[in-house]
Amino acid sequence: MTLRTLPRLVTLEGGEGAGKSTVLAALREALSASGSEVVSTREPGGTPLAEQIRSLLLDTHHEPPTTDAELLLVFAARAQHVRETILPAIERGAWVISDRFTDASYAYQGAARGGDLGFIAELEQRVVGIEPGLTLLLDVPVDVGLKRARGRGAMDRIESEREDFFERVRAGYLARAQAQPQRFRVIDATQPQADVAAQAVAHLRAWMETNA
Amino acid sequence: MTLRTLPRLVTLEGGEGAGKSTVLAALREALSASGSEVVSTREPGGTPLAEQIRSLLLDTHHEPPTTDAELLLVFAARAQHVRETILPAIERGAWVISDRFTDASYAYQGAARGGDLGFIAELEQRVVGIEPGLTLLLDVPVDVGLKRARGRGAMDRIESEREDFFERVRAGYLARAQAQPQRFRVIDATQPQADVAAQAVAHLRAWMETNA
Repeated sequence: MTLRTLPRLVTLEGGEGAGKSTVLAALREALSASGSEVVSTREPGGTPLAEQIRSLLLDTHHEPPTTDAELLLVFAARAQHVRETILPAIERGAWVISDRFTDASYAYQGAARGGDLGFIAELEQRVVGIEPGLTLLLDVPVDVGLKRARGRGAMDRIESEREDFFERVRAGYLARAQAQPQRFRVIDATQPQADVAAQAVAHLRAWMETNA
Repeated sequence: MTLRTLPRLVTLEGGEGAGKSTVLAALREALSASGSEVVSTREPGGTPLAEQIRSLLLDTHHEPPTTDAELLLVFAARAQHVRETILPAIERGAWVISDRFTDASYAYQGAARGGDLGFIAELEQRVVGIEPGLTLLLDVPVDVGLKRARGRGAMDRIESEREDFFERVRAGYLARAQAQPQRFRVIDATQPQADVAAQAVAHLRAWMETNA
């Protein structure tokens, strides 16, 4: 592995209905209170071009991409996001919080869609080149998460997958967390949202103390 | 190399202003006269999704993709094109003529942009998996081609590159042709268009006779 670890890049991962939005707002507030510039961003997306790629990936009225096309579109958006948004922010001393990053490809395009994990790792090395210092994984059983997500209304192409797809996403994420315990913090996201957010902020503060 | 060669897939390659459109029409007519179904298609593009990716690649009003994002977008479109358009047509016995295919990535994203040719070859193996039986390369000096292309009016993002970029495209194509003489036929496209088209059709007819 030759990825460059960026201590000020923090990523938030989790399946559908894990409560990422609430946690993201709390993390942003905690970082801003420290006086640092904070850039919050998301994947797929994070630049105008990458957001257009996101729409090709998620909109249900488009021709659905094949498994290979989906994987390459996600990494094209990520290459753009890293170069145009994340690296410039890190280089000027900002903290960056991203709602999903490369771990999501291991979970969604890899574990859930059956994409080759070795090929994903090679794309990561060749066109991403960086990894976050800290990754918070909001873990929730699939039935709980889907009930929440489906309560929000219209679903995108990925949200419309079957439950076994999301079981593989969850297992994919947990396998990543188990393999890289120094980077991951797994939070039980069945707890009340305020508790989940408080635990996420506590993990972030502990991380900031040693990486300010 | 483990690419599957498809005898009925014919590709047309060349830089800007090489006269591909005229030749394409002549090839299509020659194939149709033989009574075969003919699918003519193009890259980037060839499916509704791939055409949307094309617009992200070529429109000058979009945020320009980075070198890596361009490479992955081109191969995402190609993966979709192969699976959704080319393979179904070949499987029902049609001939397919494509205005550009994977060789264009070796010339544009590889030779001209400096992309890693080994990585391009790996993407070809992993997400394309096929190669044409016959490739016609319309070769024209850069100044002649650009004068023709620029006479057509508004230029897209790639057409707006500088001359040294197109010199590298041309050299990239000629290197591919030299390395794979059994597949390539190089045609001097400085000749009058009718002569270029007649030579292209003659190459195609010779190919059809041995691969009908």
